[in-house]
Amino acid sequence: MTHTTPTRIAVIGGTGPQGRGLAYRLARAGHSIVLGSRDAARAGAAAAELRQQLDVAEITGASNLDAAAGAPVVLLAVPYDGHTELVTGLAAALDGRVVISCVNPLGFDKHGPFGLDVPAGSAAEEAAAIAGAATVVGAFHHLSAPLLLDPEADLSHEDVLVCGDDRAAKELVMGLATDVTGGRAIDAGRLRLARQLEPLTAVLISVNKRYKTRSGVAITGLTQASQEKVIA
Amino acid sequence: MTHTTPTRIAVIGGTGPQGRGLAYRLARAGHSIVLGSRDAARAGAAAAELRQQLDVAEITGASNLDAAAGAPVVLLAVPYDGHTELVTGLAAALDGRVVISCVNPLGFDKHGPFGLDVPAGSAAEEAAAIAGAATVVGAFHHLSAPLLLDPEADLSHEDVLVCGDDRAAKELVMGLATDVTGGRAIDAGRLRLARQLEPLTAVLISVNKRYKTRSGVAITGLTQASQEKVIA
Repeated sequence: MTHTTPTRIAVIGGTGPQGRGLAYRLARAGHSIVLGSRDAARAGAAAAELRQQLDVAEITGASNLDAAAGAPVVLLAVPYDGHTELVTGLAAALDGRVVISCVNPLGFDKHGPFGLDVPAGSAAEEAAAIAGAATVVGAFHHLSAPLLLDPEADLSHEDVLVCGDDRAAKELVMGLATDVTGGRAIDAGRLRLARQLEPLTAVLISVNKRYKTRSGVAITGLTQASQEKVIA
Repeated sequence: MTHTTPTRIAVIGGTGPQGRGLAYRLARAGHSIVLGSRDAARAGAAAAELRQQLDVAEITGASNLDAAAGAPVVLLAVPYDGHTELVTGLAAALDGRVVISCVNPLGFDKHGPFGLDVPAGSAAEEAAAIAGAATVVGAFHHLSAPLLLDPEADLSHEDVLVCGDDRAAKELVMGLATDVTGGRAIDAGRLRLARQLEPLTAVLISVNKRYKTRSGVAITGLTQASQEKVIA
């Protein structure tokens, strides 16, 4: 069922809703998942729960550090609060890894959600600056965690926007994105465009509140022909 | 053909591609348009050209200042470069107006497009700060100018994201958005979310380049039911 070669993927922050949701979909597509958490026991419990839901899937739990050290692909699915310290602590273990960031630096006040100012421009660029020997790709910012975790939810009409500066890593992540949603992944350009992708989630949360729904993003104008031009 | 009461709308920067495109669609829907330009003669020539294309429509040209002074709704369709000075010069004329900003503060370098740092957060918020007695709404950031100007182009699958702090002004602009595209307008939340809507255009331009297309944005998860909940 994978569109990509089955891969071992560490999900840092794998006990949170976004991490669990992405882990569930990636495991269901045939990838081998290690959930990371600050607390290895909590990661183990979350892994056991997902294994029950999926029956055959290979899902284990570990400390964030052990999870990252044991997988070629590492997904950062943590809140932005504490991100700098977390990535700093993992930097050595991320050496040579493809690191996927779906971190959304958002704040909330009485007027709703808003994008936080991030000194590096975006969480993805911050991770790239701290973990200099990792290849960072931004993706999966806009998928709703409850929908990811809902076995019946069809996500194939949502586009996963993927940004990064390394073509091969970006293509790997675009394959994983198709495994997650069953739909399209879109090359959104350079890693610095994570500055736009991450806080766009504030707009989606605002729409969710106003329309009482779980919104996502699709890009119009991408015909089959325009996508084939790129593949060719 | 309008979904809203026919309205007199001034399009500041009405000789540029985005301004002309929006003017064309608004005039076609039955609104009365005055194109503004720094040079009233250029605005008059652009208006004459659009009148020829549309036959019946009411389109005239004027200086930016005269255009703004003569219409209850003013659309800012100018490049960000020079925006501060332009709005400062028009501020008195914008008193009491609904001002629609579709300004995208973007930069370009060898790596492609990127969002500029705007001291006020976004061009829309900058306009609101300078023209304190105007009601500013952000909209129309993501529509392709060539598609707007193409009489055959169907834009009904694109969503117009509208942000603002005044409910009535936002509803007026959402009506105009439906007049422009024939599709949906989405209440994206507070005006400050223009910080996310404006530079998202950098992502679309990047996608256009990669996929050789004219991309736009749609929001997923908005069922008819969720939209009716809001209307009700």
